[in-house]
Amino acid sequence: MKLRLGMIGGGQGAFIGGVHRLAAALDGQYELVAGAFSSNPATSRASGQQLGLDPARVYGSYQELIAQEKARPAAERVQVISIVTPNHLHFAPARLALESGFDVVLDKPMTFSLAEAKELATVVAATGRHLCLTHTYTGYPMVKEARQLVGSGALGRIRKVYVEYPQGWLSRFEEGGANKQAAWRTDPARSGVAGAMGDIGTHAFNLLEYVSGLQVEKLCAALHTVVEGRRLDDDGAVLLRLSGGASGVLIATQVAAGEENNVRIRVYGEQGGVDWMQAEANTLLVKWLDRPTEIMRTGAAYVGAYARHNTRTPAGHPEGYLEAFANLYRNFALTLQAAQAGQQAPPEALDYPGIADGVRGMAFIENVIASSQSEQKWTDFTV
Amino acid sequence: MKLRLGMIGGGQGAFIGGVHRLAAALDGQYELVAGAFSSNPATSRASGQQLGLDPARVYGSYQELIAQEKARPAAERVQVISIVTPNHLHFAPARLALESGFDVVLDKPMTFSLAEAKELATVVAATGRHLCLTHTYTGYPMVKEARQLVGSGALGRIRKVYVEYPQGWLSRFEEGGANKQAAWRTDPARSGVAGAMGDIGTHAFNLLEYVSGLQVEKLCAALHTVVEGRRLDDDGAVLLRLSGGASGVLIATQVAAGEENNVRIRVYGEQGGVDWMQAEANTLLVKWLDRPTEIMRTGAAYVGAYARHNTRTPAGHPEGYLEAFANLYRNFALTLQAAQAGQQAPPEALDYPGIADGVRGMAFIENVIASSQSEQKWTDFTV
Amino acid sequence: MKLRLGMIGGGQGAFIGGVHRLAAALDGQYELVAGAFSSNPATSRASGQQLGLDPARVYGSYQELIAQEKARPAAERVQVISIVTPNHLHFAPARLALESGFDVVLDKPMTFSLAEAKELATVVAATGRHLCLTHTYTGYPMVKEARQLVGSGALGRIRKVYVEYPQGWLSRFEEGGANKQAAWRTDPARSGVAGAMGDIGTHAFNLLEYVSGLQVEKLCAALHTVVEGRRLDDDGAVLLRLSGGASGVLIATQVAAGEENNVRIRVYGEQGGVDWMQAEANTLLVKWLDRPTEIMRTGAAYVGAYARHNTRTPAGHPEGYLEAFANLYRNFALTLQAAQAGQQAPPEALDYPGIADGVRGMAFIENVIASSQSEQKWTDFTV
Amino acid sequence: MKLRLGMIGGGQGAFIGGVHRLAAALDGQYELVAGAFSSNPATSRASGQQLGLDPARVYGSYQELIAQEKARPAAERVQVISIVTPNHLHFAPARLALESGFDVVLDKPMTFSLAEAKELATVVAATGRHLCLTHTYTGYPMVKEARQLVGSGALGRIRKVYVEYPQGWLSRFEEGGANKQAAWRTDPARSGVAGAMGDIGTHAFNLLEYVSGLQVEKLCAALHTVVEGRRLDDDGAVLLRLSGGASGVLIATQVAAGEENNVRIRVYGEQGGVDWMQAEANTLLVKWLDRPTEIMRTGAAYVGAYARHNTRTPAGHPEGYLEAFANLYRNFALTLQAAQAGQQAPPEALDYPGIADGVRGMAFIENVIASSQSEQKWTDFTV
Repeated sequence: MKLRLGMIGGGQGAFIGGVHRLAAALDGQYELVAGAFSSNPATSRASGQQLGLDPARVYGSYQELIAQEKARPAAERVQVISIVTPNHLHFAPARLALESGFDVVLDKPMTFSLAEAKELATVVAATGRHLCLTHTYTGYPMVKEARQLVGSGALGRIRKVYVEYPQGWLSRFEEGGANKQAAWRTDPARSGVAGAMGDIGTHAFNLLEYVSGLQVEKLCAALHTVVEGRRLDDDGAVLLRLSGGASGVLIATQVAAGEENNVRIRVYGEQGGVDWMQAEANTLLVKWLDRPTEIMRTGAAYVGAYARHNTRTPAGHPEGYLEAFANLYRNFALTLQAAQAGQQAPPEALDYPGIADGVRGMAFIENVIASSQSEQKWTDFTV
Repeated sequence: MKLRLGMIGGGQGAFIGGVHRLAAALDGQYELVAGAFSSNPATSRASGQQLGLDPARVYGSYQELIAQEKARPAAERVQVISIVTPNHLHFAPARLALESGFDVVLDKPMTFSLAEAKELATVVAATGRHLCLTHTYTGYPMVKEARQLVGSGALGRIRKVYVEYPQGWLSRFEEGGANKQAAWRTDPARSGVAGAMGDIGTHAFNLLEYVSGLQVEKLCAALHTVVEGRRLDDDGAVLLRLSGGASGVLIATQVAAGEENNVRIRVYGEQGGVDWMQAEANTLLVKWLDRPTEIMRTGAAYVGAYARHNTRTPAGHPEGYLEAFANLYRNFALTLQAAQAGQQAPPEALDYPGIADGVRGMAFIENVIASSQSEQKWTDFTV
Repeated sequence: MKLRLGMIGGGQGAFIGGVHRLAAALDGQYELVAGAFSSNPATSRASGQQLGLDPARVYGSYQELIAQEKARPAAERVQVISIVTPNHLHFAPARLALESGFDVVLDKPMTFSLAEAKELATVVAATGRHLCLTHTYTGYPMVKEARQLVGSGALGRIRKVYVEYPQGWLSRFEEGGANKQAAWRTDPARSGVAGAMGDIGTHAFNLLEYVSGLQVEKLCAALHTVVEGRRLDDDGAVLLRLSGGASGVLIATQVAAGEENNVRIRVYGEQGGVDWMQAEANTLLVKWLDRPTEIMRTGAAYVGAYARHNTRTPAGHPEGYLEAFANLYRNFALTLQAAQAGQQAPPEALDYPGIADGVRGMAFIENVIASSQSEQKWTDFTV
Repeated sequence: MKLRLGMIGGGQGAFIGGVHRLAAALDGQYELVAGAFSSNPATSRASGQQLGLDPARVYGSYQELIAQEKARPAAERVQVISIVTPNHLHFAPARLALESGFDVVLDKPMTFSLAEAKELATVVAATGRHLCLTHTYTGYPMVKEARQLVGSGALGRIRKVYVEYPQGWLSRFEEGGANKQAAWRTDPARSGVAGAMGDIGTHAFNLLEYVSGLQVEKLCAALHTVVEGRRLDDDGAVLLRLSGGASGVLIATQVAAGEENNVRIRVYGEQGGVDWMQAEANTLLVKWLDRPTEIMRTGAAYVGAYARHNTRTPAGHPEGYLEAFANLYRNFALTLQAAQAGQQAPPEALDYPGIADGVRGMAFIENVIASSQSEQKWTDFTV
């Protein structure tokens, strides 16, 4: 049985809402049945109509969606609510949804502030509901393989992590015009205290902690607002001290003109390293001190259980961003279905980002901003 | 409104049926409501149950599916039937479906023989129904860009085409065991007169004619059965003479041990060439006589209307095999929806492989086998 | 002690003569002391002066060079003569040099015709002199590693070989103007019966037999003269049957507009394959049926004796075309020095192309032209 | 006429001395005639013999070499002295050589300390002799193209620079054994205050300032000694503020297990960026905001005068590390020859690293160490 899905945000003109819908649809485990696609009721209605929804279940506000769906019979009401609004509109609907008995998929960064994030964590704990945070990049099979390889100890103790996320789409002042993405992501009132660091730096941070299995303990950040007139950082680099004595560098920029979206992570241990980048998402380079670099590939017979579980096609059939995104939705569905059945999902299905990642991500944002504003070299990473 | 989809074949253990379902689901334009997933009724039932279908619409044979769905009210019965059986079971269900008023998605190669293909073409013409043939590779946005660029004349007159399709999965004798794919694809009774040339050579052939805009006029083939005990070709190469005075080489093999599925095409004209390979599916290399090679990328602002239409995400978010496959389904849906509305779909939507590609593909199979068996160098490509 | 080198051909405006000089200089094992750089004495003199040679040893013809150098005291006269003239001027100076007691470095293709090549072989045998034929590509360390890996049996019995040599520099009619290279290489009176097949097809052929360790037994060629007005083939493809039951495809073209010089070879056995291309010359991809592809790299600790012997710098310091070329000169020097000392050079040093490669290369040219002109599919490869 | 070359250091077991000899030999502009290859006279003699030098010109110390060569007739004595000793033995022989009237090629980092570097600058100024510092990477044609492109303004104002230099060869404690390279490079008494930052960090720094045309103004460094027992840094990352308002990140490590030597630089301006890495040294990626990335290639007809001047072969014939190194020697020779002729060399020939680069490189070392030891975030870059 498909899970009944409701969506908050993601109306016409949005980017990530459409991605959520594609990701939810791919594996046939969700059926979108309700939505409050915009705070503008007319836009919400138009979006719902375009999506072929029952007009009775297209709402003018998230409050309305949650209240009315809650009032429907259990067999009919939405089970999962995806929240794909700008950052300042994450917390309130997420809390209300959780407290109203719904499981939640939430876009990143999790909230507007760390305080909200910590409060949301208490809500999750109190309600016992499930929350999936869409840090897409950890959904790639070869990223999962990298994490498993690191965790297996095959590379020895981890010493060094490089993560970078270069984009170029904000190289010009785009926020004055029709570009809705640029407008809200550079607006402190909607995006939060960070620009690039919130939008993509948190992805890089999450990827770093996920693959390395380490935690950031101290950081030293240099953030910049490169484009004149912009109100938030659009570029930055961060030196990191990690648990276990490792160190790292995190780079995120939205003004590397000509770059697309090639997030990359490299993790080195005593015996070798792993190297993954989104532009060649189905390849994991595994480098070794004394023998040839190996090219591990999505779908190959030799990959481990986590990568295999998150792959749909045989080796040589490239899977991409939507499949990675869909892996989050699929694993969340498997987890919920197991819970409904009173079971525990297998570990591969439980391996999706959640509330803990969200809290650390928001802590990253606040710590990185604090460090950037400090004359002191090292700032403790505090949550 | 979603199109109601029925499926013939694709039960448990199959590969391509699952791919069709993922592709149909991705864009939310189809809803799978019925199926005859196996000629074994129990397997069909189990598959239907796993897919969450109404048991009343899971059938034990394709005849039953077509008859009973036809008997349902128009607002309820399936509109499109996807046929994903082995090659020897394409023609009969396709004909029956078309003659029963259904539009058809058919896996490739289109039929078991050229004679069947030509007969199916008359059925399509007679019934006025639509048929989509899933030559996946022409669904990639950068393949479409390549075709448009060639067609624009920017490269000058086309002189040379190289297409290659190397795989390694049949490097050993796999057909004796549990590998269902290997079993039927190497069985003349189910696959037809060709092995590798039917399975992947037809893809290469279709890609060649699609991108170059040229037609094969003469060919000279050397096919081999490399693995002992195999009953069909598992390897081959073909020299080609193309319309307009161009020439080409087509390579297809399933015994290139260690290769995955990296179909590649290169087309050269007087001024430059295009180079695309599935392993880097979002990149189209455009080479020029006197200036730097350009890297064109899926989702970039500068790509043409066909590539843009077949892309879901911004540049830097890799789309892969399932998205290419889904483009066929999406364009077919757009075409059918336009037809239902008494309109003509836009040219980008009409650009999916159909009956004419299927006839030429089957002609390729028969001509390439004939050439391979001939002592004469050149064989005319006859349909 | 450096070997004293004389050069025939390679005056101002030539390409390959300069390459020979760079290659001979790199490892400090040769000193250029004499030359007949052009059949035009003034050009020869000017070239010699530019190279800083003693004017007394700059000659107006190859006959003069050979005669006068032979007349010099043994401790002073040239020991090795490099012949870098167009093809029609290979045989006569080579024979005279060998018969006059000199060792010879000869550019490829070895002679103007197969008959000349066979005659030269008898001269080599009769005189006992040494001859090095500059099939550059077998000088690359990773090509040597590929040959050793194939020869070791690690890939199992070889089944399939693909070799391709795409260039674009003759995409236009260049031979009418100032381009000396284009002029002689497309002129049957200077180049021989073949154009592209002689110039680059022989390289591809040599690489194929070298890496695979197999011999061509039958071939089926389709050659083309694509550019209007050209007098020799500028494009072609050849189907091959190889010893041991393997098969292959050889592609060579000079009209792939936008291509540089990316000769590539792939060899597949039962267990895996090797893949090398000049554009990434320091990388050898080793592909395996059941485990990750390995990236073997020039200079790495794990490479074998042949690759190591032909490398100058540690891993990560790219060596290129000139180093590969220099490897031929260096190995030839080591062989001559060992011979002078009454010793046998180590096998790694003896591994340079010689007279046997030259005879087979000329046979390739004549067989491929014969096949191309035949209506019969397969032509026996005869020497 | 070849320049007569003497060498200090570079005896048996050394790495970089051999590279200098290959580089000097390649273009035939130098003849090695003298050397003090080791402070151990026996080793020096053996090295000289192996190189075929006149034993009378193989010396037991650099003082002896300089004194005795100076005593020889002008037409015979060395003209250029290459100093390829460990860092602590750069300054004294360089000063003596310059003051004795010789031109000098010096390996990097230029001296043992910044104080020495500045003193050497006064010696160069006072003597009017020439000095070439072998920062190899600026010798690559595509690096020169990158600098020219940036300097042309085509990318707009520069905003961001990333330079990285990952190696893995010191991942283990190597300095205790037979590895002479590891021994001296990790020894403060021979290497100086920095390890990785002196050895490869200075290369990265030089490349950054060369390509971007900007200067480092402030830095914030985090250096590490990762391998237990090591006495100098083997890893580090540096945040940079550059002239003109740009910022940057510099990464250098010798403990990235499995990495070879893939120095890479990326420079972004308002309109696009350049991306070069040594592993694909003949390619320069030029990225643009609104159009396809371009692949510029060594030897192509469209490259500028600086790249062309530093290339020996046509496009598609890879040139590598030795050629880049040789470009420094060749340009230095052209400069000296022009000076001898009372002329100014063309700007392309004058474009080699010299005393000013050396001073800034030593300043980088001392500033980066100071920053690393400071609790303050930003350290002014002082010279």
